[in-house]
This record gives sequence, structure tokens and C-alpha cells, in this order.
Amino acid sequence: MRMYDIILKKRQGQVLTDEEIKFFIKGLVSGEIPDYQVSALMMAIFFKGMNSEETATLTMEMAHSGDMANLEGLEGIKVDKHSTGGVGDKTTLIIVPIAAACGVTIAKMSGRGLGHTGGTVDKLESIPGFCTEYNLKDFINIVKKSGLAVIGQSGNLCPADKKLYALRDVTATVDNISLIASSIMSKKIAAGCDRILLDVKVGSGAFMKTKEDAVSLAKEMVSIGNLVGRKTVALITDMSVPLGNNIGNNLEVIEAVNVLKGEGPEDLTEVCIELAARMVFLGEKAETVEDATVKVKEAIKNGSALNKLKDMVKAQGGDASYVENPDKFQKAKYSVEIKAEEEGFITEMDAEKIGIAACEAGAGREKKEDSIDYSAGIILNKKIPAAVSKGNIIATIFASDENKLYKAAETFRNAIKISGKAIKALPHILDTIE
Amino acid sequence: MRMYDIILKKRQGQVLTDEEIKFFIKGLVSGEIPDYQVSALMMAIFFKGMNSEETATLTMEMAHSGDMANLEGLEGIKVDKHSTGGVGDKTTLIIVPIAAACGVTIAKMSGRGLGHTGGTVDKLESIPGFCTEYNLKDFINIVKKSGLAVIGQSGNLCPADKKLYALRDVTATVDNISLIASSIMSKKIAAGCDRILLDVKVGSGAFMKTKEDAVSLAKEMVSIGNLVGRKTVALITDMSVPLGNNIGNNLEVIEAVNVLKGEGPEDLTEVCIELAARMVFLGEKAETVEDATVKVKEAIKNGSALNKLKDMVKAQGGDASYVENPDKFQKAKYSVEIKAEEEGFITEMDAEKIGIAACEAGAGREKKEDSIDYSAGIILNKKIPAAVSKGNIIATIFASDENKLYKAAETFRNAIKISGKAIKALPHILDTIE
Repeated sequence: MRMYDIILKKRQGQVLTDEEIKFFIKGLVSGEIPDYQVSALMMAIFFKGMNSEETATLTMEMAHSGDMANLEGLEGIKVDKHSTGGVGDKTTLIIVPIAAACGVTIAKMSGRGLGHTGGTVDKLESIPGFCTEYNLKDFINIVKKSGLAVIGQSGNLCPADKKLYALRDVTATVDNISLIASSIMSKKIAAGCDRILLDVKVGSGAFMKTKEDAVSLAKEMVSIGNLVGRKTVALITDMSVPLGNNIGNNLEVIEAVNVLKGEGPEDLTEVCIELAARMVFLGEKAETVEDATVKVKEAIKNGSALNKLKDMVKAQGGDASYVENPDKFQKAKYSVEIKAEEEGFITEMDAEKIGIAACEAGAGREKKEDSIDYSAGIILNKKIPAAVSKGNIIATIFASDENKLYKAAETFRNAIKISGKAIKALPHILDTIE
Repeated sequence: MRMYDIILKKRQGQVLTDEEIKFFIKGLVSGEIPDYQVSALMMAIFFKGMNSEETATLTMEMAHSGDMANLEGLEGIKVDKHSTGGVGDKTTLIIVPIAAACGVTIAKMSGRGLGHTGGTVDKLESIPGFCTEYNLKDFINIVKKSGLAVIGQSGNLCPADKKLYALRDVTATVDNISLIASSIMSKKIAAGCDRILLDVKVGSGAFMKTKEDAVSLAKEMVSIGNLVGRKTVALITDMSVPLGNNIGNNLEVIEAVNVLKGEGPEDLTEVCIELAARMVFLGEKAETVEDATVKVKEAIKNGSALNKLKDMVKAQGGDASYVENPDKFQKAKYSVEIKAEEEGFITEMDAEKIGIAACEAGAGREKKEDSIDYSAGIILNKKIPAAVSKGNIIATIFASDENKLYKAAETFRNAIKISGKAIKALPHILDTIE
């Protein structure tokens, strides 16, 4: 078998066989296939696509290219959740304890933030003492004890995907649905869970800018999951504006606690209840999604979900008193209020720009090596379609450095538009793909 | 400027600017742009193409990436000729002396053979003593003295094309008209001539398999030549069967001498007269192509063309007595006659397979490092649409090794078909693009 023939075949729009995809991934990981042949194949795939079977085979070959987390030692149906990334997306911090409170076994691996999107691992690490690095044995033991755990991805998870993504990133071959879907799903499958809930974000703050693209990606991922025997469901949720009011690491933990207390903002609460209900239903702890929704609301109301978060923080070495009393979290040294400069209605609140502003304030990384300021970020006071008078506070920006603060404030101001006529806010949940 | 953006732009089907193409070629040659980005761009170009201006710019940037032969020291209009390669294509050996005899200045660089196609440099080197390696100064001096010279390409001609072609060759991105055209034309332009005659071969023995593709390639190259101020004309000629009767290095020199004596086969003679007339007209040594044709025929008839070949051989260190008496050429140790196994008409004589057979006999190289047996090859006795009786000799294969001989004979037999009904032979010259 020759890589040349595989490239030519795909360039001509033909379907690759399982053997050809295996040969490609094996040679990619071993380094026997040079990068220039890999990138030529990626560009041919960009133009000619892959069918569902090719995509599923690629996914499974990437999943098996490194360590496969074996979670068989854990009882029950293990349900994983993945968000395609957004601004203010702290849903994992909320739905994981809710689902665990409803009896679902949660052994989840999460990522760090990069660019304008945040990452669950960073948010958790803003709780003093919280540890996200465990070997598989310890990880399983924590889940056995507490019923849930969220850790970072192991070093040798999906090396084929790592290599392929790095190459796609510099050769303009990232934005192909099959390649994006197989990249995400290979990591989820290697992470070992039985069922997968996907939160595909759509809008300016998300990777997918249109609902059409988001639905295509969701369908592709659900198809992969079902083809390889891992039941998968996807929600399409709005990311044209940030989710909830708080953006930034410890600010998002505080907001997560508020939701678990039943005191969270409406949009975030709605999305979290739906996601959590889907997890509970996937984990077979309810007969229907409606039953699951009832159980989820009850877990918030009776405090069991909040207790599960405390259990998780304790089990992973964190100081649970921060969950009990979020006022303890360190506050940023500097803050500035962003006020409305005219009377009217908020008609634009660009999630991507606001994500960049939060990153500039110190809440995120531009490069992988950058360090994070856990207290930096943004709290929104008003969202679309709110009416504002001149001088009303729209948001407060927090930073530990005045230069960063003012740069972030400027970026934030450009993300907002106030007009004479109110617009209708988008629904928070746009579609469900199963 | 970033290579990433150039790849993305082309992937989206946009037109690259001169600056972007310059940046790409500069980075390609310096090694600053990694191969994996180059191959991704090549695949994007395969799918999205380049317009005439982009192709011309790419051509000129590749031409200027290494040494540019400066032929200004030579008087008159220097006319170059290039064939896209075929089997039995010894036209350069014939038309260069004819055109020189008609007063055209010929300072030509040629290539070596690879795979099933031969190369002019190898054929010339089958004449004992003939040298094809000269520096530019000596090359010009020989042309000044004799009016013509044919040498090999200098080491640093078009390094960008060398690198790009090597990469395209292993990433399934060779067969794109713009890329093929710019590769050929960049070398011709770097070789320094004022006007260019192209012989675009079409058929099984050629790179272009259909007339449509050959015409597209010819048009692209003529467009490049005219855009960069090097008047270019292309003939489309048949390569579904070998050209002439002899295939193999010294066998082709012998046949070239026969044509210059007015005793060559009809197909080869017709193509050479047309090509030579075009060179004479491009070199402004005739008012019209018709006048040029008269002069060309006269140069054959009066022996001046044959004398020019002798002059060239002498000037480049070769033994001209081999031209005077081709019987002197070394003969292969072994030969085998291929006879018709049934009565009928020759209806197929696959040029590619016959080229492979000649290569197997020892006349060509499979890899660049292979050595060549100058006396190996094939002489055809019959061609399409000849009638044959059982036992008639169709061809004779020559080799210095019995194993090679029989392997070549088997391949040759598979290249021939005899049927009950005669077919019409294709015209030798299919079209002219100017």
C-alpha cells in the first residue's frame, strides 16, 4: 500500500477502505508517512469529503492510536459530555454534579481554554487546591468513592488526532465537518465513556458560525457515535451572546454555584437543565427526558446537586469552603464599569469579541504556554434585548493589571451595539439531534 | 504575509497576487515554508486552478529562482523547442540542424530520459565523444562558431521547479494544467531563448492522453509565453504510436540521419518538416510558414542540414564519422524478431507499452541513477494500418542481455493488436496553437 495512491484516490473522490485509513493513521503516528503527504490528503478530503463509514473508521483509528481509558471497573452507564466551546460556557461545572446527584456515573476528561474560549480544567483549578491530574487508577477510585470526577486529558490520548490537528491548523484544512467530527469523537471515545452528550454551540463566539453548519457537525458526530456503538445525542445551543453573565475562571465557578442554588441567570439555567436532563436520560436514570427534567430540577431544589459539587471538590483536593462561600474567591485588583453611552436597546453583544476581551483581561491564553489570571474576567449586567438609559452599567471588567483592563474594556465596547429599536433574543436551545 | 493565508485564499478559489506568489516561491526555495504547507497549496491549486496571470507569475518566479542563461552575447533571434516527451521522439536531432542550416541561431538545453520516454541528451551521448556539459561561456562560444549547440540543463536551473515537482510527484498533484505549464515554461524561460516552439504530444505514449487535455496545456503555455514576452507556438502531435520506426538511443540517431538524408519514414519526416518550418518562421528567416517549409525541404535536399549536424557533433567533441557512416554504431549483442501470429491488419501499437519495452531492453532508465545501454531498443517494420501475413516481421528488439531481451519482447507483444479489419491511422499533426 502506498500513501500516494491513497491521496490520489481521495483526490478523485473515491471512498477509502478501512485498510487504507488504518495504513494512513499508523504511518502518521509512526512518522513513516511524511507531513507533506498528510497535508495533501487533508486538502483532498476538504474538497472531496468522507462518507459516514470513512469518518467512523478514521475516528476509531485515531481513538486507538494512543491510550484508551478503560472504565469497565466502574458500575453503571458512564455518560460523557462535550461542548464545542464558547464564551461563558460553564455548563460542565453545573450539569456534572446534577447528573451525579441523579445517579449517573461521571468519569469525565476535560480540556483547557485556548484563544477566546475557556476550558473546564482551568475553571476548576481556580478553586484553591483542586487537582485535575490523576492516573487512570486514582481517577477510577475517586469516581467509585464520590460518583463523579473531572480531570484533564492524559498525555497520550489520541496522538494521531494531536498530530493531525496541528498539521491541519497550519494548512487551512481545519474547517471540514468530517475532520472536525472525527477529531472530537476520537477523544471522547478514547476517554472511555459509554454514551456521549454533545453541546454544539453556534454563533459568533463558537467555531460553527451558522445553524446549518452546527447541525451538520452534530449529525456527523451523532452518526459516528451510533456507528461505533456509543449512543450519542447533540443539542444545538446559542453562542451569539455569552452564556450566563460571568466570563472568567473563578467568576464562572461563582455563577455555577448560583445556578446550583437555583439563583442563576435564566439562559444558563435553561441550557443546564436541558443538558443535565439529557445526561440523566442517557444514563438511564429516568424513563423519559421529561422525567429526567423533573429529577434535575429536584436535585437543584433539594441541594443534592450542590452537595455533589462540594463532594467532587473535596475528593479532588480542593477547598470546598469556596463552594459554600464564593465570596472567599480572590478578587481582581482593578475593575472598570462599562456604561451605556446612549439610551436604547442592546441589539448586539458579540460573543467572540467579548471572549477576546476576557482573554485580554487575563482570563485566557493566546498561546498554550501562557499563564492564566483566575480572577480576571467580565460580569454582564445587561444582555440582549435589555433597555438601557445613558449611564446604566452594562458590564464590569476585572483585571490584575491596568493596561490589560483598559485594552479589554476597549474591545468590550466594540462588541456592544445599542439601537433605537429592540430586537428579539434568540432561543437558547436551537435544536436536538439524536 | 503568511503562507497559511495564501493556502486559505486559494482553497476558497480566490486569485493570488504577484506578491503572494513571490512570497511562496521565495520561501519554497529558502526552505522557510515547510513542505506540508507547499503540498496543501498544490492540492488547493489542483482543485481551484490558477488564472493566466497567476500562472505566468508563478512561471517567472520559478524561472528567476536560480540561474538565468543570458544569451544576449549571441546575435539573432534564439529559438528554443520543447517536446512534452514521447516514444521514438528524435525530432530535436533533426530539426535543430535543419533550422540552423536555414540561419536560425540555436542555443538549446535538453533533458535526459526517464521511464518510458527518451531524452535528447542521452541520444546525443550515444555518439562517441559527444559532450553535453558546458558552462554558459563555452556554450555561447560553440554557438557563435557553429550556429548551433545542444547541451544538458545546468545544475541550478529553476531550483523552485525542481523542489515543487519533486513534492507534486509524491502528493498526487502533478496533473494540473497550470502547474505542468509553469513547470515546462519556467525552464524554457530560464534557458534564455527569445521564442519557443512547443511540441505537445498526445496519446498513450504521452503525458497528455486526450487531444482536449493536450490543447488545454498548449494554450496555457502559449498564453504564458505571450504574457511574459516570449512568443510561443505549439503543435499538437500524435503519440498514440511511436514516432518513426526506431526507438533507443543510437538507433534514433541513425534514423535522424536518415531523415536528414531525405530517407526517413513518412510520419517522422512530416512532423520534422512542420516543426523545423515553425522554428525557421519564429526565427524570422522566412516571411511565411509556407516559405519556411520550402527552405526546410531545400536544406534537407541540398545536404546543408546534415552538414550542420556533423558541425554540431564535431564542435561538441563527438566523432562525426558516425554521422557519415551510421553503420559504425555499436550493435546490440542480442536481437529477436517479433512476428505476426495471424493474418490481418495492425490496429493497435500502444506507444506507452512500446516505450516500456524499449526501457526494459536497456534503452531507458527506471530511476534517475540507472545507466543506459545505447544500442538497446526496437526497430518497427510495420505500423498502423499495415496489412500483415502470419510470420511477417513486425519489429526487432535489441538488447545486450538475453533476460532483458525476452522481457521486452513479451511487453512488446502485448502492445500490438492485429484485427480482421483495418483502421485509419491518426493524422501526425493534430493542431497548431499560436
